[in-house]
Amino acid sequence: MSKQETIRAAILGASGYTGAELVRLLCKHPQADIVVLTGDRRAGDSLSDVYPHFAGLDLPDLEAIDDVDWHAANVDVVFCGMPHGTTQQVIKDLMDRRGQDGIKPDLKIIDLSADFRIDDVTLYADLYGHEHYAPDLQPGAVYGLTEFARDVLAEADIVACPGCYPTGSTTGLIPLLQAGLVDKDDIIIDAISGVTGAGRSLKEGNLFTEVSTGVHAYGIATHRHAPEIEQQLAKASGGDMLVTFTPHLAPMNRGILSTIYLKLAEGKTLEDLRSCLESRFADEPFVRVLPDGQVPATRHVLGSNHVLLGLSTDRRPGRAILVSAIDNLTKGSSGQAIQNMNVMFGFDELAGLDVEAVFP
Amino acid sequence: MSKQETIRAAILGASGYTGAELVRLLCKHPQADIVVLTGDRRAGDSLSDVYPHFAGLDLPDLEAIDDVDWHAANVDVVFCGMPHGTTQQVIKDLMDRRGQDGIKPDLKIIDLSADFRIDDVTLYADLYGHEHYAPDLQPGAVYGLTEFARDVLAEADIVACPGCYPTGSTTGLIPLLQAGLVDKDDIIIDAISGVTGAGRSLKEGNLFTEVSTGVHAYGIATHRHAPEIEQQLAKASGGDMLVTFTPHLAPMNRGILSTIYLKLAEGKTLEDLRSCLESRFADEPFVRVLPDGQVPATRHVLGSNHVLLGLSTDRRPGRAILVSAIDNLTKGSSGQAIQNMNVMFGFDELAGLDVEAVFP
Amino acid sequence: MSKQETIRAAILGASGYTGAELVRLLCKHPQADIVVLTGDRRAGDSLSDVYPHFAGLDLPDLEAIDDVDWHAANVDVVFCGMPHGTTQQVIKDLMDRRGQDGIKPDLKIIDLSADFRIDDVTLYADLYGHEHYAPDLQPGAVYGLTEFARDVLAEADIVACPGCYPTGSTTGLIPLLQAGLVDKDDIIIDAISGVTGAGRSLKEGNLFTEVSTGVHAYGIATHRHAPEIEQQLAKASGGDMLVTFTPHLAPMNRGILSTIYLKLAEGKTLEDLRSCLESRFADEPFVRVLPDGQVPATRHVLGSNHVLLGLSTDRRPGRAILVSAIDNLTKGSSGQAIQNMNVMFGFDELAGLDVEAVFP
Amino acid sequence: MSKQETIRAAILGASGYTGAELVRLLCKHPQADIVVLTGDRRAGDSLSDVYPHFAGLDLPDLEAIDDVDWHAANVDVVFCGMPHGTTQQVIKDLMDRRGQDGIKPDLKIIDLSADFRIDDVTLYADLYGHEHYAPDLQPGAVYGLTEFARDVLAEADIVACPGCYPTGSTTGLIPLLQAGLVDKDDIIIDAISGVTGAGRSLKEGNLFTEVSTGVHAYGIATHRHAPEIEQQLAKASGGDMLVTFTPHLAPMNRGILSTIYLKLAEGKTLEDLRSCLESRFADEPFVRVLPDGQVPATRHVLGSNHVLLGLSTDRRPGRAILVSAIDNLTKGSSGQAIQNMNVMFGFDELAGLDVEAVFP
Repeated sequence: MSKQETIRAAILGASGYTGAELVRLLCKHPQADIVVLTGDRRAGDSLSDVYPHFAGLDLPDLEAIDDVDWHAANVDVVFCGMPHGTTQQVIKDLMDRRGQDGIKPDLKIIDLSADFRIDDVTLYADLYGHEHYAPDLQPGAVYGLTEFARDVLAEADIVACPGCYPTGSTTGLIPLLQAGLVDKDDIIIDAISGVTGAGRSLKEGNLFTEVSTGVHAYGIATHRHAPEIEQQLAKASGGDMLVTFTPHLAPMNRGILSTIYLKLAEGKTLEDLRSCLESRFADEPFVRVLPDGQVPATRHVLGSNHVLLGLSTDRRPGRAILVSAIDNLTKGSSGQAIQNMNVMFGFDELAGLDVEAVFP
Repeated sequence: MSKQETIRAAILGASGYTGAELVRLLCKHPQADIVVLTGDRRAGDSLSDVYPHFAGLDLPDLEAIDDVDWHAANVDVVFCGMPHGTTQQVIKDLMDRRGQDGIKPDLKIIDLSADFRIDDVTLYADLYGHEHYAPDLQPGAVYGLTEFARDVLAEADIVACPGCYPTGSTTGLIPLLQAGLVDKDDIIIDAISGVTGAGRSLKEGNLFTEVSTGVHAYGIATHRHAPEIEQQLAKASGGDMLVTFTPHLAPMNRGILSTIYLKLAEGKTLEDLRSCLESRFADEPFVRVLPDGQVPATRHVLGSNHVLLGLSTDRRPGRAILVSAIDNLTKGSSGQAIQNMNVMFGFDELAGLDVEAVFP
Repeated sequence: MSKQETIRAAILGASGYTGAELVRLLCKHPQADIVVLTGDRRAGDSLSDVYPHFAGLDLPDLEAIDDVDWHAANVDVVFCGMPHGTTQQVIKDLMDRRGQDGIKPDLKIIDLSADFRIDDVTLYADLYGHEHYAPDLQPGAVYGLTEFARDVLAEADIVACPGCYPTGSTTGLIPLLQAGLVDKDDIIIDAISGVTGAGRSLKEGNLFTEVSTGVHAYGIATHRHAPEIEQQLAKASGGDMLVTFTPHLAPMNRGILSTIYLKLAEGKTLEDLRSCLESRFADEPFVRVLPDGQVPATRHVLGSNHVLLGLSTDRRPGRAILVSAIDNLTKGSSGQAIQNMNVMFGFDELAGLDVEAVFP
Repeated sequence: MSKQETIRAAILGASGYTGAELVRLLCKHPQADIVVLTGDRRAGDSLSDVYPHFAGLDLPDLEAIDDVDWHAANVDVVFCGMPHGTTQQVIKDLMDRRGQDGIKPDLKIIDLSADFRIDDVTLYADLYGHEHYAPDLQPGAVYGLTEFARDVLAEADIVACPGCYPTGSTTGLIPLLQAGLVDKDDIIIDAISGVTGAGRSLKEGNLFTEVSTGVHAYGIATHRHAPEIEQQLAKASGGDMLVTFTPHLAPMNRGILSTIYLKLAEGKTLEDLRSCLESRFADEPFVRVLPDGQVPATRHVLGSNHVLLGLSTDRRPGRAILVSAIDNLTKGSSGQAIQNMNVMFGFDELAGLDVEAVFP
């Protein structure tokens, strides 16, 4: 396939799972070429040394960020897949050098880390354990839950891609809160994630032997994604938010299922919620509201950029249950990053993302 | 090991998973011998034809229930592991014949099906789709959540072993409701089960290929265990109960994790809840209240009869989260059945159940 | 993406896993449209009733084969994904009616079942337990291991797609036998398959609960794919073949790993084997010979049409070990079927198949 | 259960998986008490800090080896579950101090590491990359494949427990070689292991995300267990041995399946092999030769100390296939260690090991 009129993309931190997922999708994108891959610990290696399944691709070798020849690379967009806390300084440096050193004046940054997701830099510091290293850039960063950010994405220089749990849980909640259909003060988000959500880090709890035969909850009441969720829901509801959020780990690689317990606003019905979601997402290519009686399953979005939403009644009157399913690495991370790129550069939003789930 | 002063046990419906788990545990029980195994569809086969891992055991062959020679078998206790709906008539028949046909006058019945769990036979008929076939026996059936039923178990002729989800969720809730520490009208039980919970039935949804790569919720608001949970919680709270209950299926064989969202009663604190559970279960051999900061994991009870309970604060003030873990086939079914037998016959409650979890 | 100059495809037996995989890939194929889906047991349902993850696609409903309106459908190519034994008659009927009833005179048939894989109809009858129902068509059927059949594929009316195990094991063996590099009488193929290889059939042995915690061998010495492998290897070696073949089942959805034990021909070395494979597959888009020291893993081809081949020395002198990895549903079935279609219709062989493995 | 006439056991290196499995089984052993647990990195922690599922047991805390008070502990038997290479010096030190420092003169050592498995200390140094640190003790170490070592075990001071792969593959092979029924020069052992075989070490390749969706071969021709297998088979055959050995990793926690390809000795038949194995193992409590047509599965020994052996014909005449299944942590490691202890101290060999597999 000829790739004319393409943009040139750099992936910083390409050796992690979000990097690998970016490569999987971008290498088929009709209008983007991968021209830089960085990975400080693996500098000098080819990406196929790190991920043998990429051996057939024609990709640049991994290099240290400091070694990138920006003149030669002539990069239009930078994806940052580095760990939390390391990204702010890298992005600040790139932004400061725009127009110099071969860095384009209109370089776009798409960050997959948490570094620019929290509007309030003080809250950021509390959550992530260090001061924000680029507080002056934070106000200009756009929170990229694509379906709700298209207008601002088009103008953005820095896009903070949402966390996987926030993507899974807020996509369906935002329209309901905007429409005032549910009680903003009685929301419980119970989520189950696959193990790729923990990245490729070497922790005992991520070993196959420790994970494969059971499930557990973790980060109860303290997970960093809870304040991120609340921040976005507060914008939708117009008031402060505090939600219950409990993530669980299940023995599967990909997927987040969010089971969300809701209290209906006075006089509202499940059908009101359904109508709201159906009309809000009728034209969205990646969001599907399931018909009555169907419940989302993460296996039905594995490898795809879709969000499945299902609504159910509750045993207790005046309440409803919203279930959503995403692939945490695709819509929950790298897929949405590319979706944001498509919006930012005026491409077809499906470009590079028009893949079906791999099932079974 | 000599097995003197033993009782003689029959397992009806031994070819299902609860039957297999009964055999695994009973065959090591110091005071019980397995003398009858039935399985109508597999009559004539040895149990090792059905479960090759039992080939080394000296067990009776499977036979049809109607072919059991009760005189020769001289059975003290019958375990019923048959499917829902088929058990009431079998038990009624056995009870009617006590003192005749070789059936002991004081025969004890321990039922692992749902057939005698629901006190209200009209509710039973609604839930299970057929009239109760032994309504006269229902009032005498004892609901066998062992830790809360010892006094009545000692006198019982028929014990209805609780469902797996009810065991997992009510063990921790009952003391809290009895003590009035939580709001009985705001309880959400979110549970994740392994696939053995579905038994050995041939359904597409139970195939490895359909289950192994993801999670989903099912039976939202309609699962038959919800009314069973409510029935037992109502006895604890002293009032009608309606709870939110959402089961999920995860790709693992065994285990139920229940994440239970609670509203504290006026003026009560998380420490009040912790004190209540710790004192209630201090002397219980199978129930363990985890220290602050630890969260139960199903892999830590795999194959054992334990219940793990953990309490956590919630982000929203005035609320708490209770998490429990059990093995659905052990404490959630066959292990508890044997625990009930131990109480009924005055044995050490740990007899046959003193095994540690298999981890990793 | 515009789909001009496309062909029109029917998938018979679309409700099985090979059907689902055909739909996943064909729906993105730039030159093929799916215009007919059949599934006798599910006639009248939409495919998304059977596979909810396809809900976003614009697909024809499932219908009975006898109800297909061939005039309206105007089909160029028929994929048969029906069970073994049912396909011969269906294909015979279609072939007999070519030029009539709206069936094109040059209709092409691509069969994913075993029905036309065995040249010798007597052997077929022995293996599959019934006489061959279309023996007159068998001589014209082309065995479609694409890399070795391009010239005949271009002229074929009926293509028999190879079995999953034969694809995995013969791709690397054929060149070695053709070049006389290994002893044709001392070949052991030890293979491990994922559970999708068993299809969607309701058998106890395919339940999650029966499969998920262990591995086992099956069909030792009797698996039907062994004679199919031997048939193809005999063509390569120019003599009768008898190979040892042991399939195993592992708790994963997709993938076949074949570990093949070889005796080197007199005077030949591992490097001779490597040179042979490297030169044979240098220009093949889907076959990758791994460098010395790397060993194929099935997870690196999950969802892709690739074949990975790795060569290792053996402890015993004069011997070598060849390992191959494929996705049984893609290169081992539906992907190769589409690859065959591409060759038959003169399309780019990568069309619709240019996807990377989904890892992790 | 009263534990009179018991021995006192120390477990060195208790924080690894073999240590955990020793604790799981020993804590129920009627004649052994665990009185010392060491783990240098976790010294000061309780074992339940490392393995929360042991919280209910009354166990000594972990301590550094150098801090053990041997006087107070009064230990009869030491189990060593430390990594390869660290154990020789620890054992040498203990042996040197027997009769002093509170260390009993007749202290018995049961080593689960590889440190004393290889008779030839030069070969050991080649395989494990360092000189043998206790070469004078090596000749007295007994290789503890229990079924073949009972007479020497009774007199042994140091027992080297076999590796998991050697246990799985040699148990069935030794009698066949002793009887001259198979060609000693044409043996291929193809094995599939669960991930616990890799221990609890933090390697990328042991992460859930890297392992869960596929299988691969590793250590082809170079795995350290191959020379160990050959050493033991050479004793059985009476001649030098070189075998092909290929281990694979599958996404399961426990189990080793060994598929072993054999050439029959001149004039011998499959029935000869079956008779040999059946008579050799007729009285063995842990070894089961399956009837014709049954094939071992690892899930049928999960958590138990059993060895399942199955024999099959091959497609190629004059050959046979032997399949064995064990749990790598039980019979393949800690279970066999306890079995050895039972023999060494004259206990019932089933003591502490009389547990059935956990299935499903």
